[in-house]
Amino acid sequence: MRTIDTIQIGDTASFSKTVTEGDICLYAGISGDFNPAHMNAERAREGMFGQRIAHGMLSAGFISNVLGNQLPGPGTIYVSQELRFVKPVFINDTVTATVTVTQRDEGKNRLKLETVVVNQRGETVITGTATVMPPKKA
Amino acid sequence: MRTIDTIQIGDTASFSKTVTEGDICLYAGISGDFNPAHMNAERAREGMFGQRIAHGMLSAGFISNVLGNQLPGPGTIYVSQELRFVKPVFINDTVTATVTVTQRDEGKNRLKLETVVVNQRGETVITGTATVMPPKKA
Amino acid sequence: MRTIDTIQIGDTASFSKTVTEGDICLYAGISGDFNPAHMNAERAREGMFGQRIAHGMLSAGFISNVLGNQLPGPGTIYVSQELRFVKPVFINDTVTATVTVTQRDEGKNRLKLETVVVNQRGETVITGTATVMPPKKA
Amino acid sequence: MRTIDTIQIGDTASFSKTVTEGDICLYAGISGDFNPAHMNAERAREGMFGQRIAHGMLSAGFISNVLGNQLPGPGTIYVSQELRFVKPVFINDTVTATVTVTQRDEGKNRLKLETVVVNQRGETVITGTATVMPPKKA
Repeated sequence: MRTIDTIQIGDTASFSKTVTEGDICLYAGISGDFNPAHMNAERAREGMFGQRIAHGMLSAGFISNVLGNQLPGPGTIYVSQELRFVKPVFINDTVTATVTVTQRDEGKNRLKLETVVVNQRGETVITGTATVMPPKKA
Repeated sequence: MRTIDTIQIGDTASFSKTVTEGDICLYAGISGDFNPAHMNAERAREGMFGQRIAHGMLSAGFISNVLGNQLPGPGTIYVSQELRFVKPVFINDTVTATVTVTQRDEGKNRLKLETVVVNQRGETVITGTATVMPPKKA
Repeated sequence: MRTIDTIQIGDTASFSKTVTEGDICLYAGISGDFNPAHMNAERAREGMFGQRIAHGMLSAGFISNVLGNQLPGPGTIYVSQELRFVKPVFINDTVTATVTVTQRDEGKNRLKLETVVVNQRGETVITGTATVMPPKKA
Repeated sequence: MRTIDTIQIGDTASFSKTVTEGDICLYAGISGDFNPAHMNAERAREGMFGQRIAHGMLSAGFISNVLGNQLPGPGTIYVSQELRFVKPVFINDTVTATVTVTQRDEGKNRLKLETVVVNQRGETVITGTATVMPPKKA
């Protein structure tokens, strides 16, 4: 957990994980999103990617993970997030979400961060920007 | 599944679900996000909301659900999403995600939609905007 | 369910199960353990086992299963467990946990059991010893 | 990730989490342990604790989490663990697993750690000792 006075522009943190079929199965159960692109191997085979893809919002969750657990960490308030879904994530892709501080406003206690998710081939799958309020001093 | 020529500005669709403790437990497992605000009842009690809250991205998934399954539905490409986290979702809140078409560009095959998530008390918890490419005619 | 007077030294019981990727995914969600050895196929490939391995405590749970459900069974109090992690369990390995009574103290109502988990190739993955108090007569 | 030369006797790390009914439900599915003490509210009501309790090994997993993710962290080899189940964990208890280095043998690259799990009332639920091999320098 880090208050804004300890955070500099350029500070960065990451989280990596393999996105498994089990993750997609469970995420469908939580979100109710049973789109055949994610859940129907037959339909997905005929679709534009030739195979099932992970839900885009599933991978967006890794960004939220880094913001809430590392930078700034516990106590952070998530104000807003812009997401651009650039490429699909396939089953068993290993993705890395990275957040990097780009603006800080100590008066308003606000940070802007660049947020990006990249796969194991180095391809960007999500780009975006987050605004957060770091925890305040106790 | 609807192609852009069948979609009008003002068209709308929704999905509702109770967000349970089990959903939060599973979502933590998928996202790796074990922030005490979501996972630690003792710490959350002392926090700003007085209790555990659901991960914001969990509720954002209900927006994606509506876009991918109803409007425009299967075959849609999710281009981008802006999210503003306005209020927390608590365990056992029932939320409704609604998307409403606000712009259509038939030449580029793109739609903009207002996306909002509301709880059972009528309070808005997430606002935002989505850009999608509806499925094309076969 | 068996009281101590019905249990002899040498009595034995087992439980077998295939450890799937889904089990590992769910176990990470319960335990919060997202160690890349379990959750990151890319990092695990470069690690000492060349692939992801199951959490050791996941397989230890099969020992507890046998003690609590078969020998001595429901009503048993789990006093202590020593575990030695001898070899890794890989995704889709089928493991068998076996417990065998080695000491009984009817006065103190205590049993010691050898506890071992073996994979489908006959390799021992966990060894150890459990101490339990069997259920008492009603 | 920390190599043994950076670790001192007395170094400590912790992980906290509320143990929910959903965790117990999922853990039963992974371990196959459907002991009525965990899964049958009617039987558990008549049992010695008057309510369902979490699987002991479920809480032991939080120890493994701390060893593998924090101290020493990724790359650690889990050699052995002794566990003593002192008190039950009930649904919605918030537990904290803490590991503390008690012995280090730099020649053999081995650490001993005291491992303890405590609930929100400050009661110890598990005590024990772990032996691990920290990651080696690359």
